[in-house]
Amino acid sequence: MLSKSQIKLIASLKQKKYRQQHGLFVVEGVKTITELLSSNLELHALFTTQSFNINAKLETIISASDLKRISFLKNPNMALALFKIPQPITLNYDGLIVALDDVRDPGNLGTIIRLCDWFGITELLCSQETVDCFNPKVVQATMGSITRVNIHYADLKETLSEMDLPVLGAFMEGDNVYQSQLPEKGVLVMGNEANGISKRIEQLVTNKISIPRFGDLQATESLNVATATAILLSELKRR
Amino acid sequence: MLSKSQIKLIASLKQKKYRQQHGLFVVEGVKTITELLSSNLELHALFTTQSFNINAKLETIISASDLKRISFLKNPNMALALFKIPQPITLNYDGLIVALDDVRDPGNLGTIIRLCDWFGITELLCSQETVDCFNPKVVQATMGSITRVNIHYADLKETLSEMDLPVLGAFMEGDNVYQSQLPEKGVLVMGNEANGISKRIEQLVTNKISIPRFGDLQATESLNVATATAILLSELKRR
Repeated sequence: MLSKSQIKLIASLKQKKYRQQHGLFVVEGVKTITELLSSNLELHALFTTQSFNINAKLETIISASDLKRISFLKNPNMALALFKIPQPITLNYDGLIVALDDVRDPGNLGTIIRLCDWFGITELLCSQETVDCFNPKVVQATMGSITRVNIHYADLKETLSEMDLPVLGAFMEGDNVYQSQLPEKGVLVMGNEANGISKRIEQLVTNKISIPRFGDLQATESLNVATATAILLSELKRR
Repeated sequence: MLSKSQIKLIASLKQKKYRQQHGLFVVEGVKTITELLSSNLELHALFTTQSFNINAKLETIISASDLKRISFLKNPNMALALFKIPQPITLNYDGLIVALDDVRDPGNLGTIIRLCDWFGITELLCSQETVDCFNPKVVQATMGSITRVNIHYADLKETLSEMDLPVLGAFMEGDNVYQSQLPEKGVLVMGNEANGISKRIEQLVTNKISIPRFGDLQATESLNVATATAILLSELKRR
């Protein structure tokens, strides 16, 4: 059975301020929950229509209609879990880092986290204005990759200024990425969906690169930030 | 002023069968509508809060609240247009073709159309089960690229069998795409979000390729179909 206060708590976790207040975030679906259960993340509560055979204190068996009531999805998938937001850890400067300058779309952030995981990038640095990685839509889109990428929120300008690393950023007038000598260590900055990389961050970019467009002059002006990240990470990692 | 029948017609165009029955599809937002107006597509009707200074017979000035009523978006952007679905044209076999084996997510199809446009690929071949490219969410995600890519729906197996071209497909056990000799002409097949390329299409794949994973063994099992398409098109086009 679900209590009124549980229902209220879960609904509140759609909003960042309540996630921060309670230190909890929502994860849905058997596959992603199972993946998170085997990670370092700590489970707070699991609401499920079928037992996961875990510590009974943490698990509540509920009806499908109760699940529908608490789920953020159109088609809930058997279970909804609350996990504790992990303590922030220190940024590891060794290797490639992806930095996001105000990426606002939850689907884009989720896809970029999944890409970092695929390409073995453990550090993702986000500006304070970037969408919160514990937003339920982001967590859903990461397909479990959120457990394997360390996500840091910080003042991007300040943090980049303190680093002694090449900073790569995509600009229309940048060097053709296919013909550039790319560093093995450094930061790849990706910009906001509508405005790209901001002026204040552009000043810190040491290597301006571009993905050449093969379509004719009328072709689309830009790529989606997640697909551009995919192409650039592939170029940085292929050798 | 909007008539009841106009409201009913627009609402019906969310569904494929009514789009096909009326031969019309919906486009929203000033930027995309302007781009479509300057393409070969034929406008059927424009409902807007501010005149576009086009043929007055086609334009209806409406209030913001009326726009909210007919819009499919949470935040409607000044105008909603109905365009005529163009007549299908013949597939051009000269060059690279992207083929989709049951891609179901409108956002993924829209992103792939935008990628084709960027990489100068004019022909996109879709299985009959692939989401309809005139679905409003697809049109929105293409950001205008839908006017520059020829999208064909056909029996994929039959069409691929008739072509005398290399057929590339991504499989876990395929050859490392970064080390493969890739053809300049051919078909790149991308599979369904959950199941990848189907068995019936796999038989026709002549070049099995794979995008190597750089993360450790626990890393994500797969990439999103749109990001995988981005990486493979980049590899096919970079020279």
